[in-house]
This record gives sequence, structure tokens and C-alpha cells, in this order.
Amino acid sequence: MANKISPISGFPEYLPAQQLAFNGIVSKIRSVYESFGYVPLETPAVERIDTLISKGIDSKEVYALRRLNTQGEGDDGAKDLALKFDLTVPLARYVSQHYANLTFPFRRYQVQPVWRGERAKAGRYRQFYQFDIDYIADSPLPLAADAEILAAAHQALTSLGLKFRMRINNRKLLIGLLQEYKFSKTAEALKVIDDLEKIGTEKVMSNLEELEPSANAKGFLADIRNFMERRPLASLNATAQEGANEIEQVRLALEVLLGRKTVDDTTTFDITIARGLDYYTGTVVETTLLDAPELGSICSGGRYENLAESLSDRKLPGVGISIGLSRLFSWMETQPQFAPTASTTAQVFIPLESDAALPAATAAAGNLRAAGLMVEQSLHAQPLPTQYQKAEKRGLKYAAIPEENGKVTLRTFATRSNQSGLTPAEVAAKLKQ
Amino acid sequence: MANKISPISGFPEYLPAQQLAFNGIVSKIRSVYESFGYVPLETPAVERIDTLISKGIDSKEVYALRRLNTQGEGDDGAKDLALKFDLTVPLARYVSQHYANLTFPFRRYQVQPVWRGERAKAGRYRQFYQFDIDYIADSPLPLAADAEILAAAHQALTSLGLKFRMRINNRKLLIGLLQEYKFSKTAEALKVIDDLEKIGTEKVMSNLEELEPSANAKGFLADIRNFMERRPLASLNATAQEGANEIEQVRLALEVLLGRKTVDDTTTFDITIARGLDYYTGTVVETTLLDAPELGSICSGGRYENLAESLSDRKLPGVGISIGLSRLFSWMETQPQFAPTASTTAQVFIPLESDAALPAATAAAGNLRAAGLMVEQSLHAQPLPTQYQKAEKRGLKYAAIPEENGKVTLRTFATRSNQSGLTPAEVAAKLKQ
Repeated sequence: MANKISPISGFPEYLPAQQLAFNGIVSKIRSVYESFGYVPLETPAVERIDTLISKGIDSKEVYALRRLNTQGEGDDGAKDLALKFDLTVPLARYVSQHYANLTFPFRRYQVQPVWRGERAKAGRYRQFYQFDIDYIADSPLPLAADAEILAAAHQALTSLGLKFRMRINNRKLLIGLLQEYKFSKTAEALKVIDDLEKIGTEKVMSNLEELEPSANAKGFLADIRNFMERRPLASLNATAQEGANEIEQVRLALEVLLGRKTVDDTTTFDITIARGLDYYTGTVVETTLLDAPELGSICSGGRYENLAESLSDRKLPGVGISIGLSRLFSWMETQPQFAPTASTTAQVFIPLESDAALPAATAAAGNLRAAGLMVEQSLHAQPLPTQYQKAEKRGLKYAAIPEENGKVTLRTFATRSNQSGLTPAEVAAKLKQ
Repeated sequence: MANKISPISGFPEYLPAQQLAFNGIVSKIRSVYESFGYVPLETPAVERIDTLISKGIDSKEVYALRRLNTQGEGDDGAKDLALKFDLTVPLARYVSQHYANLTFPFRRYQVQPVWRGERAKAGRYRQFYQFDIDYIADSPLPLAADAEILAAAHQALTSLGLKFRMRINNRKLLIGLLQEYKFSKTAEALKVIDDLEKIGTEKVMSNLEELEPSANAKGFLADIRNFMERRPLASLNATAQEGANEIEQVRLALEVLLGRKTVDDTTTFDITIARGLDYYTGTVVETTLLDAPELGSICSGGRYENLAESLSDRKLPGVGISIGLSRLFSWMETQPQFAPTASTTAQVFIPLESDAALPAATAAAGNLRAAGLMVEQSLHAQPLPTQYQKAEKRGLKYAAIPEENGKVTLRTFATRSNQSGLTPAEVAAKLKQ
């Protein structure tokens, strides 16, 4: 019996107060993304294995499906299907499949769980939520789209009350510099550079040297270390100049959207940001919490010139960013200022002193709900002090005790004070204040 | 390439307008359930296979997990896990596992997808959403809880604008009658009776006769056909009387919550309602749409005396009801009065006449958002009529054209009229009307 109900490692689930706090976070991000005109999208939990693989994930981490207790699957089988491991591959498949029925630019956000068969450890889950936002065009993509995506994510994180730094770079700048130092395997080199923060300069240098012995890894790393002081724009090659210009343009657009001071205070150009994924081609961004740099980037993304390369003949450039919601929440819920409090959605508690009082209490509950209030009615008779104590502990602030004639006495738990003779509408007005 | 992007049978996904309509339905039901003080809960997609099986589902319908391209799973494997096929088994596991950290009665709602490996056909999905609400006690459960659950579901369906009939019965009544007609295998007989609407009286009679040849299937079926006219309460055995009394008490409590006329018009006692699942012990309910009886029950549930029997030593009685959301939506979206319209969340569209106008348009977008509006800004310069046409087609009703000094001209698409010189706050006030 114990085994059946012990937690499954890596598949977190929340108690009511946590779930309410988590939902509150989702709701705030959603509001911001909708204020930018992005539409919600959900895709099924599964994709075809064909669609999922060859996307840079270790295939051992993919959870595939099988039918229980069956042999010989046939057409009806599950053998071609696996759980999605991110929200980008499903987006690429979705826009390819539904291209004719979508309007472009296609602005969508998506908040859903994804699954990876990683060895579970703190902050690493096998099921975790991502909150993605992407802007997909079917014609050349203006840099204003990069700024819009960054602004939306910036406002979303701000709406959560987080202190953070967005670190912005552009792959063209890094690629131009790599070329300057005689690298030709630039895609592979970017992956190595992506580990800079994790493994340090020494190790990255030896990895770069191993990748391409004929290139000048040492010169490259020395250059990016003091890049800002040393390199005037004119000294860069064309690719690097294009990258530097794009960074500048995105920054200017961002200042129009967020205000210059906000951009100065919370974003930074960081030439070491490379991102590990193949498909990024321009802007790349990572975001660090000032109070929890050890979490790593909690909001990352960038621009890709061709989202659905392997799925569609159309060229669909886009830009997107993803918030690692489960990981972010695992930190937020431990912080006093974000810690979950209420474990109920109700605003008003209706106690039950005796079973004989049930009809009057039920009528009061119905009337208060009709007045627009969220009402929890006790159906189990108990001494009032016990009920009040339990209700307050769960985060309720008021009780309503039915009187005659449809009025109620409103009890405020914080002050232990009662106000009698209120109509349901009066209670609703009072609680809205 | 084509195969990778063709739909996966039985795993529906929606276009933006459908998704927005679907989310609107979820949001309405959620509001009603929260107004009753129920808290949201999510459980992981997977449960242990041990926990899932032996719950009356055909194990061939269960999707289990496997790791892709691995041999020899070890502790880190997926072989013990399968996708949940309903929200009731996870609820039972959840309350057993987290018993010490929950407050009882535990009121929760849960809206999540579940998975069944059924052969896909119209209205039958392999991934589909259920919207469940349950009231779980750790002490005797008052009948008022049954009424509360029915009232919440009733108000939820009403909030969607549906015309429906809730058909209410009590298993004790059926069990008492089955005993009267010499049935001893009452649990199995209830499952046979559950098929009455689907396969008709003749076939049910032969199934009942086959189940228990010594019982009087014919007498039983004749009795329930004319039950209301013929059987005074006093003529029933004790079990059946208890069932009849419970139906009456639930109905009276429901009248207090919903009003007598509403209860008269929209609910009915129906002795043929049995429900197929083992765990129901008292109240059972099914709900039929008046405009689409062919959908079958879109909202079903009942009372169970012991939710977590196989998982916990504690007795946890409860009552719950489940809305078959994906199936309900598959019908609603085809009906003119419910058909999805807008495919955007934005209220105001900001056009872009030329790239030079971008900074002014971006500033206007930022200001209108700061005033609380949901704003879609065009980043692709195009002739205005083309842009307006596309925006209106996606459900936008207004455009805002930036003027000097931070003011805008508001264009109303329906009337092709423009009003100039509005501040962002004035636009927000106007659109709130």
C-alpha cells in the first residue's frame, strides 16, 4: 500500500496553497502576454517519434508510449508516439500542419508540461512546466519582433515581482568573431562557448582547441573578455558588425517599449551568451535572478531564421522565449515574499452551528454567491470557535453568519469584530474595498 | 515530410479561435467552482501502473511509458509508469499520500487531460479533457455535500448557456429493488442496467437473466418502467427506502441552492440511472443536453463511501461529478450560438503604414498597454486597408492610429468611423463601456 502512494521521483505535484500560488504566477504571465495580443495554444502531450528526434535532445531522455498488456500493435498502437520534451518542436509541427488556417505573423503563448527522462535531482524534473511565447512570420521578420518578445517576457517577470537581469547577445557577433580567429566549425564552437559560465574559461579553451586545433581559441577568449573596451565597431568583420547593429536596434526598440531607465537597469549586453540549441541565428537571451543566480537562466530564447526546416518547405522565421516555470516556482515558493499563503479560493466562510441551521446557511451561501462572492459553506456542525480557527488558518478573512430576512452578520477574523444586518450586496461591496 | 505533420488520430488540437473558445469554457466553469470554495488541483500525467490498474478499466486502454532506445531500465526507468486515464484514481492517490497536509472536507476541482488507448472515432478521443469536482470528507458525509456538488455542476453548465436535464438516482434504491427481485449479484447487475439507454430493455433483460438466472429480471424491469406511478414508499424494502429518502433530501437541499423552479425545470428523478463504475454507493447522476441527447451524458458522477479503499486505511467518503469537456466542446463548437469567433485576445490593433512610423506606433502600443488594454501592434508595414481587413477578420473591433503628443485616433471597424485626439486612458474608458 505504501508504495502505491509514495511520490514518484521527478514528477512534482502541489498542495492546495502551492497550486494556488503556481496558478497565480501562470495567470500573471498570461495577462501580460495577452496584453501583447498573443493567443493561447495547447498541443497534445504526444508527438510522433519521427517529429521529436533529431532535435538535439538525447533520445534516451524521451518517454515513448506503449500499450499495457498487448502484443502486436497494428495501426491502433502507440509505438510511434512519445511525450513532447519541449514546446518548440510541437510549435514547429503545429504551424507547418495548420499553416493554411493560421494568420501570420502568428503570435502565440503556450504553458504546458513537458517530459524528460532525466535523472531527477533538486530543480530537475521529469515533468515540468514551460511557459513559451513566440512570434512567427511567413515573411522577413523585423527586429521589432525581437524587442516585442523581450519586452513581453520582461514585463511578465516584472509582474511577478522578480529582480532579474536580461543578458542579450547576438549569434552573428559571436560567429563573426569566431571567423576572425580562424574557426570554421562555428555551430559547434557556439555550443562549447555556451558552457562558459558552467565550466569556466580554462575548460572552454581546451574544448575549443580540441574542436579546431588550427584556430586561435586563446585569442578569441581574450578578445571577448574585454570586448566592450577594446573593439570599435569598425574593426569587426561584416557578420560581427551586423550582429552588433542588431543588438543596438533591439535595444533601442526595447527602450521605446519599456523606458530607457528600465532597460539600463535590468538588461545588459553580454557577449558570452551563446545558447546551446542549433536553431538560433541572431538575438539570443538569458535571464538571471539577482537573488538566485545559482538557478541559472530562468527565461531564455532567441531568434531563429527557419523554425520548421525539417517539417515544411516554407521558411518561417521567428523569435521566442521560454520561462522555466517549474524551476522558477521551486525557488519562489521558498522565498518569504512569494511564499504561498491561502489554501482556499473562498472569500467568505459560512459556519454551521447545528444541523438544524443548515437550510438557513445554505440559503445564505446561495445569496452571497449570487452577489458575486466566493463562498465556502461548512456542512459539518461544529463549535463556532473551532470552525473559525480552521477557516482563518486556511486563509479566509471573513465569516458570514445568517440572520433572519436574508441578512447576515459579517465577522472579520483579524479583528474578531462583527457587523450585523448586512445584505449580500452590502457584504460584496464591503469585501471589494 | 507529410507524415510528420499529419494529425495524430484521437489527439485533438485546436486552432486559435477554437482554443480561445475552449479556454473561455474552462474559465466559466472554474469561476463557478471557485465561488463554491473549491481549490484547483493538478496531478502529474503519470501514475504508477500498480495504482492505475484494478480500477475497472480495460488495461489494454492504458498507455504505459517506455524509454526510447534504452535497454535495461534499472531504477531510473519508466517501466512502472503509465498515463492517467481519469482524474478519480489520481485524486484517491493524492488524498491518501497527502492526507496529513490536507484539511478536510477537501474541496477540489481539476481540469486536465487524460489518456485512453481507445480506437478513435467521432467524439471519442485518446487524449481528452475532464473537468472534475469532488468533495472528500474524513468523517461521515452529509447529504448536503451531494446537493452542493450537483448545484455547482448545475450552475457551471448554466453559465455556459446550455439547456440540459440532470437525471438523478440513488444506487440504494436500485439495489433494494434488485434484492426484492432476488438478485444477489447487485454490483454486476448495476453495470448491466447502466447499458439500458444504449442497448434497450430486451437486451438488458437477457443480460440480467444470463447474470443471475434464478432472479426475476422481467419483474424488475417492468417495475422500474412504471416505478413512479406504482410504488408507494412504504412498499419498498429498507435499502430502497433509504435510497428514496436520500433522493428526496438531496432534492430539497438543491431547491434551497438553486430555487425550486429551476430544480423543477432542469432536474428529474430517473430510476434507470445506474452508472457503470464500481465505487458509487448512493446518489448517482447523469446529464443530457436537450439539444444533443445523442452525445450521451456530458456530466456524470455520484457519491462513494470509500474513495481510497485500496490506497489508504482511512475511510474517505466523497461525492463528485465530472464534465466530459472535450466531448462537450466537440458539439458546442459546431453550434452557431457557441461557435468560436475571435482568433485574437487583443482589443486594439495598431497598424503600421511605413517602417518610419514604427517608433511612434511602438510608443502608442506601450502607452495603451500601460492603460490596461490588450494591444496587437503590426510590425510589418502594409497598406492600411489590407491591415484593417485582416485585423477585423480575426475579431478585432478597433484600431488606434498614433497622433502627435501621445494621443491616438480610434477607428471603429464596424462603423468605419474615426475619433481623434484620445489619450490612452480615454481609449481604455471607451472600450470598457
